[in-house]
Amino acid sequence: MDPDRVVIFDTTLRDGEQSPGISLNTAEKLEIAHQLARLGVDVIEAGFPIASPGDFEAVQAIARAEFEPRPPIVAGLARANPADVDRAWEAVRDAHRPRIHTFVSTSDIHIVHQLQTTREDVKGLARASVAQARALCEDVEFSPMDATRADVEFTAEVVAIAVEEGATTINIPDTVGYAMPDEYAAFLTRLYGHVPGLRDVVLSVHCHDDLGLAVANSFAGIQAGARQVECAVNGIGERAGNASLEEIVMLLHTRQADVGLRTGVDTREIARTSRLVSRLTGYSVQPNKAVVGRNAFAHESGIHQDGVLKERSTYEIMDATEVGLESNSIVLGKHSGRHALKDALEQLGFKVEGNALNAAFKAFKEVADRKKQVTALDLEAIVSDEMRERSDAHELAWFEVEAGTRKPPVAKVAVTLPSGEEAVGESSGDGPVDAIFHAIQNAAGTECELVQYTVEAVTGGEDALGEVTVMLRAAGRLATGQGVATDILEASARAYVRALSNALEGAATREAESATAEAAADRTPGP
Amino acid sequence: MDPDRVVIFDTTLRDGEQSPGISLNTAEKLEIAHQLARLGVDVIEAGFPIASPGDFEAVQAIARAEFEPRPPIVAGLARANPADVDRAWEAVRDAHRPRIHTFVSTSDIHIVHQLQTTREDVKGLARASVAQARALCEDVEFSPMDATRADVEFTAEVVAIAVEEGATTINIPDTVGYAMPDEYAAFLTRLYGHVPGLRDVVLSVHCHDDLGLAVANSFAGIQAGARQVECAVNGIGERAGNASLEEIVMLLHTRQADVGLRTGVDTREIARTSRLVSRLTGYSVQPNKAVVGRNAFAHESGIHQDGVLKERSTYEIMDATEVGLESNSIVLGKHSGRHALKDALEQLGFKVEGNALNAAFKAFKEVADRKKQVTALDLEAIVSDEMRERSDAHELAWFEVEAGTRKPPVAKVAVTLPSGEEAVGESSGDGPVDAIFHAIQNAAGTECELVQYTVEAVTGGEDALGEVTVMLRAAGRLATGQGVATDILEASARAYVRALSNALEGAATREAESATAEAAADRTPGP
Repeated sequence: MDPDRVVIFDTTLRDGEQSPGISLNTAEKLEIAHQLARLGVDVIEAGFPIASPGDFEAVQAIARAEFEPRPPIVAGLARANPADVDRAWEAVRDAHRPRIHTFVSTSDIHIVHQLQTTREDVKGLARASVAQARALCEDVEFSPMDATRADVEFTAEVVAIAVEEGATTINIPDTVGYAMPDEYAAFLTRLYGHVPGLRDVVLSVHCHDDLGLAVANSFAGIQAGARQVECAVNGIGERAGNASLEEIVMLLHTRQADVGLRTGVDTREIARTSRLVSRLTGYSVQPNKAVVGRNAFAHESGIHQDGVLKERSTYEIMDATEVGLESNSIVLGKHSGRHALKDALEQLGFKVEGNALNAAFKAFKEVADRKKQVTALDLEAIVSDEMRERSDAHELAWFEVEAGTRKPPVAKVAVTLPSGEEAVGESSGDGPVDAIFHAIQNAAGTECELVQYTVEAVTGGEDALGEVTVMLRAAGRLATGQGVATDILEASARAYVRALSNALEGAATREAESATAEAAADRTPGP
Repeated sequence: MDPDRVVIFDTTLRDGEQSPGISLNTAEKLEIAHQLARLGVDVIEAGFPIASPGDFEAVQAIARAEFEPRPPIVAGLARANPADVDRAWEAVRDAHRPRIHTFVSTSDIHIVHQLQTTREDVKGLARASVAQARALCEDVEFSPMDATRADVEFTAEVVAIAVEEGATTINIPDTVGYAMPDEYAAFLTRLYGHVPGLRDVVLSVHCHDDLGLAVANSFAGIQAGARQVECAVNGIGERAGNASLEEIVMLLHTRQADVGLRTGVDTREIARTSRLVSRLTGYSVQPNKAVVGRNAFAHESGIHQDGVLKERSTYEIMDATEVGLESNSIVLGKHSGRHALKDALEQLGFKVEGNALNAAFKAFKEVADRKKQVTALDLEAIVSDEMRERSDAHELAWFEVEAGTRKPPVAKVAVTLPSGEEAVGESSGDGPVDAIFHAIQNAAGTECELVQYTVEAVTGGEDALGEVTVMLRAAGRLATGQGVATDILEASARAYVRALSNALEGAATREAESATAEAAADRTPGP
């Protein structure tokens, strides 16, 4: 293996999906996985197969997917026990390049309080699980969880066992985001000192951002010899999240002349990947987020603008086109035809043909009638929205609403049921959105609890497209839905109907699995 | 000075306010300054006085404000020229402890391309401006802009001149966010080597987050000897922003036993400061933002939740109450009286009496009628909203809207004009929000261009309060307005009327200053 090549291990679908309130279904996970493959990540951690049948199904679907051009490794997570490892293998075995990722904590605080066992037992668990995984799969990763708060000698003993049993990657998680860069690098250096065999496997870093140091710690780890970085798009994950994929990649890219390392990532896919993940998870990206924030490349002050006009490099160290923001120049209008739409979509990376193109064109025309210019970002939102539609599910037929400060709002909503029948519901509420949501519940004959409701503007200006994400609980299941429209109430209604539809569909497939799932739900882990 | 004390220099109102789309008026800047004082920052960089008369006015108002309990230093920024330094002094001179912060670039890329001058000239500018500032003010800070891309020897020459002329703080900006932690620390160490006098002044760090390393670089600088950190609340600022105040403070706080340094910040004020800045700037904080993100303290996965229940420290390195999230437990209902409201507000840090209490109580009752429970976050949003209201400006009287998928939306809005008269406007639009905005323009008889429109949920759940921020351009002026309501359309209408009102008011006070302002507008700087 090239010593200057850093492996990008994306955990958006595992640690990222563990973020509070994120609940992706299999189709959404697959969509993200395909985009991660286009982005050029080396490893996709697709989930934790034993956590629930839904998780298993998603990991298996990703393992079985055909990825172009270069199939990434597909990893499944497993605690250090036989059932977990078997289940992970079952889920990933059909991948071109499967990996089992198993872990056990080495910090006393975890061993004593959470596992309620002994160091000896932890060594045994590590040995058995790596051996078992290695018998099933050539590519095995082992993580001593909470390593940065653990005794380095004991962690080294456990790591040595994992290497001895054939682990091919050793990952050192800063599970609680506690480490400082020099301290983390020193920890890795000491591990190298204690475990000579560590030089023969890939050392990996997994850092959380609780103190704002996830990228810096990952980078310090790389400088200490690690050649795999575990990270997530937009830095999502437990609590303050994981190291942000786009930041660590652009750091290595921008400072390549000085650092001398490279990744296999096609940086021009970064912006789109970020938008897709933000849209599907409902996790917004703040405007000042490095690399992918709306203003990461904006120059506001006069002196900076003046400098950039005279010579870009005065205030720019990265070019916006490098992260894929150049496609923003695509603009269509209401007179643009089907061909122009198809071309524009291809430039955006969407292959849309036949019925899908017809549906996209119809949606495009509806928006173009209201909006003077339809930009690349609008197109992406419309098409993503359209492609996510399902024929067999509930759909919004129409709605009417009256609202104001002088009387309570009233909404009337018609929902097309899976049977094709149109059901109409009517309701008042705290506001027009609330009234619409209750009217939808009445139409569908289902009680839902709204968990989260967010609105984002896709683009600026008077006629901006609003993108609404709704998360709700219905039939005992958490589900999200998105809706895009120039009308914020329409976007809200669509998002709600979709979330409801996803919840009911999920609930149907779940009946068979309920007992298992409930039992496993409290066991989802995260190094 | 205590060698273990790190000075927190907050530049939210200067570099932060330079973020694209942020436009705070003097009242809003003062509100933030008072909160920064409560937070316990040591220095408030209040603005760049020569940039515009509005900037000057805000800096002067902050310099003249009475801060409790400990008045911070108030700094004004000035390029290295006589007019800038004089103007900065004029603005800050009435502060308890004024500071002039002057700067000039030392990187060849800036000297050649932007300043279009020579290194010799830069040395002369630094000498003259520090000398001038020092003759006016005892506390003078000097920054060699873009230092991290400059020749270290030349930067050292310029720094030595500034120290010689009496600068009391030397700040080394990583203006373009290009540095890596070890590299930045090495740069500072070399400066110490070249400039012996640097040991006698305060060394300061100013890092940008373009590669996600602002906090790590600041921390590396502190470890190399710096004892002032320039940072901004929520990490706002040019492009990807500045080092985030809350992250660097909580890093030093959480790792104090190992690092041995401390700040004067009252960490329990962090969450509220973050919300205030987010609300007034319209810059959202992403859910996974370290320390202040909605989920920074949330544990999602079963294994993490299980661990936290058994022993908090298994997955928590900070306590949510440390950053001021404990007040979230305050809850009022529709039967709560004026006294309960006053008590709750006091716990939240608001002293509200007399008419202000009556207004707050009225607003609270309106919300409580619609919402089952009014939480601390709701109260804060309502009261902040209410306290920002002005009697002499435009106000929303009432509105009505009809919308749906089957006909174009129609809005009718009544606006109370500054004269007290009620003007009614009517309009259709792309959606109900657009129709409302156009109806308001018709009522007010003013054309506006909508620049930005964002919606945030203050709290979750069915009956969440929506907080809308509108940025628009009217009468040649950019202005923002916020509105809070359970009805998203009502919140939108209020926010729009306020933004419009702010723009018109600003335009009126601006007539006298227009020529100067236009000339100065392209000169706003940012180290």
